[in-house]
Amino acid sequence: MKIGFIGLGRMGTAIATNLLKAGFDVTVYNRSAEKIQPLVQLGARPATRIADAAGGDVVITMLANDSAVSSVVLGEGGLIKSLPTGAIHISMSTISVVLADELARAHAGAGQLFISAPVFGRPEAAAAAKLFIVAGGNAETLRVCQPIFDAIGQKTFPIGAEPRIANLIKLSGNFLTASVMEAMGEAIALVGKAGVDRNAYVELITSSIFPAPSYRTYGNLIASSRFQPAAFLAPLGYKDIGLTLAAADSLQVPMPLAGLLRDRFLRLLAHGGENMDWSAIGGLATEDAESRTIVQ
Amino acid sequence: MKIGFIGLGRMGTAIATNLLKAGFDVTVYNRSAEKIQPLVQLGARPATRIADAAGGDVVITMLANDSAVSSVVLGEGGLIKSLPTGAIHISMSTISVVLADELARAHAGAGQLFISAPVFGRPEAAAAAKLFIVAGGNAETLRVCQPIFDAIGQKTFPIGAEPRIANLIKLSGNFLTASVMEAMGEAIALVGKAGVDRNAYVELITSSIFPAPSYRTYGNLIASSRFQPAAFLAPLGYKDIGLTLAAADSLQVPMPLAGLLRDRFLRLLAHGGENMDWSAIGGLATEDAESRTIVQ
Amino acid sequence: MKIGFIGLGRMGTAIATNLLKAGFDVTVYNRSAEKIQPLVQLGARPATRIADAAGGDVVITMLANDSAVSSVVLGEGGLIKSLPTGAIHISMSTISVVLADELARAHAGAGQLFISAPVFGRPEAAAAAKLFIVAGGNAETLRVCQPIFDAIGQKTFPIGAEPRIANLIKLSGNFLTASVMEAMGEAIALVGKAGVDRNAYVELITSSIFPAPSYRTYGNLIASSRFQPAAFLAPLGYKDIGLTLAAADSLQVPMPLAGLLRDRFLRLLAHGGENMDWSAIGGLATEDAESRTIVQ
Amino acid sequence: MKIGFIGLGRMGTAIATNLLKAGFDVTVYNRSAEKIQPLVQLGARPATRIADAAGGDVVITMLANDSAVSSVVLGEGGLIKSLPTGAIHISMSTISVVLADELARAHAGAGQLFISAPVFGRPEAAAAAKLFIVAGGNAETLRVCQPIFDAIGQKTFPIGAEPRIANLIKLSGNFLTASVMEAMGEAIALVGKAGVDRNAYVELITSSIFPAPSYRTYGNLIASSRFQPAAFLAPLGYKDIGLTLAAADSLQVPMPLAGLLRDRFLRLLAHGGENMDWSAIGGLATEDAESRTIVQ
Repeated sequence: MKIGFIGLGRMGTAIATNLLKAGFDVTVYNRSAEKIQPLVQLGARPATRIADAAGGDVVITMLANDSAVSSVVLGEGGLIKSLPTGAIHISMSTISVVLADELARAHAGAGQLFISAPVFGRPEAAAAAKLFIVAGGNAETLRVCQPIFDAIGQKTFPIGAEPRIANLIKLSGNFLTASVMEAMGEAIALVGKAGVDRNAYVELITSSIFPAPSYRTYGNLIASSRFQPAAFLAPLGYKDIGLTLAAADSLQVPMPLAGLLRDRFLRLLAHGGENMDWSAIGGLATEDAESRTIVQ
Repeated sequence: MKIGFIGLGRMGTAIATNLLKAGFDVTVYNRSAEKIQPLVQLGARPATRIADAAGGDVVITMLANDSAVSSVVLGEGGLIKSLPTGAIHISMSTISVVLADELARAHAGAGQLFISAPVFGRPEAAAAAKLFIVAGGNAETLRVCQPIFDAIGQKTFPIGAEPRIANLIKLSGNFLTASVMEAMGEAIALVGKAGVDRNAYVELITSSIFPAPSYRTYGNLIASSRFQPAAFLAPLGYKDIGLTLAAADSLQVPMPLAGLLRDRFLRLLAHGGENMDWSAIGGLATEDAESRTIVQ
Repeated sequence: MKIGFIGLGRMGTAIATNLLKAGFDVTVYNRSAEKIQPLVQLGARPATRIADAAGGDVVITMLANDSAVSSVVLGEGGLIKSLPTGAIHISMSTISVVLADELARAHAGAGQLFISAPVFGRPEAAAAAKLFIVAGGNAETLRVCQPIFDAIGQKTFPIGAEPRIANLIKLSGNFLTASVMEAMGEAIALVGKAGVDRNAYVELITSSIFPAPSYRTYGNLIASSRFQPAAFLAPLGYKDIGLTLAAADSLQVPMPLAGLLRDRFLRLLAHGGENMDWSAIGGLATEDAESRTIVQ
Repeated sequence: MKIGFIGLGRMGTAIATNLLKAGFDVTVYNRSAEKIQPLVQLGARPATRIADAAGGDVVITMLANDSAVSSVVLGEGGLIKSLPTGAIHISMSTISVVLADELARAHAGAGQLFISAPVFGRPEAAAAAKLFIVAGGNAETLRVCQPIFDAIGQKTFPIGAEPRIANLIKLSGNFLTASVMEAMGEAIALVGKAGVDRNAYVELITSSIFPAPSYRTYGNLIASSRFQPAAFLAPLGYKDIGLTLAAADSLQVPMPLAGLLRDRFLRLLAHGGENMDWSAIGGLATEDAESRTIVQ
């Protein structure tokens, strides 16, 4: 199967690498071309235009936000214009429900197939081919894509024919993860101010009632106030909570905890946190409780 | 070792049973005497007064709230009066930090030893001797109690010399668990209103990013709106969030998520939820989003 | 001065009527033409196209939302195309800060003058020429418009050269007003459940510490659960809180109370409140506290 | 009428002074005796024990909190022991609903009469005899007290036979006032970050839609970040919101805005605000939005 791959950030590079390792014929494109070289050395073909990556059976996009995806798909020289009839676009980016709908309509109008397949997992999980893939779209098309998913993830969850539902579930998952940061942040602020060793507390909680990776990973970052270098940037977390709230608004679903998270991110960004890991929102409860500065 | 055991609710009965199985000499007391009989049949000695359960090396209390513990320890004919000098009181109840301090002082004044050892785990975990025990108090006394903890739990976390810290950590754990209910409740309200099957969603989330028992247990209860019979009653959850906020107030730690949980519990109780499982607070986000009644 | 007036809802009709009474030469336009007739009887000239209302010295728009304003100004046959060079557009609608900026740029590009002049006041105040006008734009242009403002309001607040600031202040005012509904709603829920007569309570509060019209007007509506007919519709209140939060997001200003209000409006709309007055959000605290239905 | 007056803080001194001016025979008591002298110079009789102030027809208490009132009334040598049968205790302090109930029962048991009559107004209003008095208790007893109320306030609101209702209403009023601080604090943070002059904004808002003293007074303090010297201390505001939430908890009334206020006060106190005016909570929204320190 010939695959085009567009978007070589940390996640995209790791995924494309695993596709090459699995023996796929992969053509890679990235807006800033220097990211292409390492993959070419692993056997990828380089593309200098989007259209050059769109000539195969499948094209995968893994980009930072709605605006980047919109430009690559709907813009001048984008996929709608360049992807052959009957070819498949797999969108792995975390984008809005509204844009997912727009992409689905545009591809259908152009006789192309569209799958929304956002992933759960930090860059390390992507590198280890351990992603979880939430995939929405036509069942037969999903079947065709399964070997791709198998090469990059540990499990695929098909969620039915509507691509946008996959995006909604992905957003809900990021909301759940950010909720862990707030909950652990408040708990750590409480026991920490009482004199408990913060890291020992995280060890206790994650060895007993919350043996889940996110509690361990984010709990330790928060307990240590270690928010740089960032594995996932605060502005991206803010964007995802914003997209969650936008979906909640259009579905008329009040989400007070999501509102609290949005305010935490806004405060973090207003205080200079744009280069911090998104878990820095978990340090704000301690800032509230003590006079020391955590994120500034 | 001769042990007295006071408080034979679901948790206490399970714990006392495991102590008998482990070969301890156990005398049991409960305010309503009919709970005693099943344990006597397993080999326990019956006590009709608190003092009769307080004659051995150790007495364990597992009671519903501050008021019950205060009465059993500090009241007329209570442990302060009846426990021998040098004997140990292990308090396993989820009580306030303030009362834990008061008990520590009262026992010290009476020449008795005091351990605060609240536990994490639902009644099934107690029955399976799989509790997690958070134990605070004098190190040598904790060493003496270790065989008791080994008979009832899977792991003990000694947290230092101050008993009240064990209670604070226990409260923080119940806060974290209730936070899961709110987060999952909002996420389920969101995807459910978009047409996603709620139970399938919980399966997806707990098979991927949140492989933790509490997400699975409470997620399924919330997805199914199955809040009766209760494993842990809503009024007890409300009590624990109230004790968490009381501790946060005296430490001057703002906890906005805990405040949100308190309001959820208040609304649940105001709408007739006093016999429901505490996870019913996770149904309120769906009540907000849809016109159907969940908890009334 | 020849004035065109576009948008004959309750507010627009009242304002245009006062302009006629003050002796201005007014041409009126409305998308649905039947609203024009009553004003023609008062002496207005009818227009059947936007361009026909745009031939004078000034054109005033008073429309429901961003989309309507954007269409009338920037759309096919809109003001940018039809307003003469040097003529003035006074935008009185409650619109987003972003759109205000866009209108300012577009008019400047077309050699036209632009004033943002949103107003405070319910339809009764508009009818009585008692509006408060918050006016942003070039000082000389504001001076030219002053006779218009004098004919429709009791006071004009010039806020400087940037039109969008007037819109931001208008949005902040609607946020403050909705905050009164939440605060009074919670207070009424509290004292009402304790047995206090709700209307007597509002009388007490507004005769003592809060002698402000909004406390009286909205307090009485909330105390009586009298949310229909609506003077200002809940979906418009929801829109304004949304625009406030959008401005707060782009300025990076966390506004937790605004977030609470957004959730109240979402719940109200999800429960069928779209034809209710926006003060119906003040009934939700009582719904939380009691089992009776307020807004469904 | 012979009146005893206990509690000579800023409010109590102003009230007792007005009683003397009105010609009442007043005996004054204060825990720290130096506060007595100025009143003696105005004609008051000094008392060195509570009992000495409790010999007349009426005794009035105006104290800082539940603990002080409880001690003066229920403690050793307190009013229950010293007030004659048939004499009246008017409690003007802002205390909990629970304590008001306890006082009512204790006085009834001792054959004494009890009126709860908390007041609205800052010290300047007390000095000008412009307080608003919310009075609960037996109607005939209220009639007897009316000349006292007339001497110190501009209006009395009789709220029925249950004293605790007067306290609940007083607490609700302080909640409403603190809500103004939060709402104005957020609005000022928003427009201030957009470059609007903060004091000019307060002038605009209070000259138009919110012509209420609390908006003007607190709006100006917040706009100027002028929180010292305090007219009403932050710890007292925190206490009152805590008593409001305690009443709400026992009535099972969720009050999310009150919860937000509690967190604001906790953060203020954790950051060293104990000597600031309670309106300093209105500065926290600006701290969230900008990197400058407001209250530290």
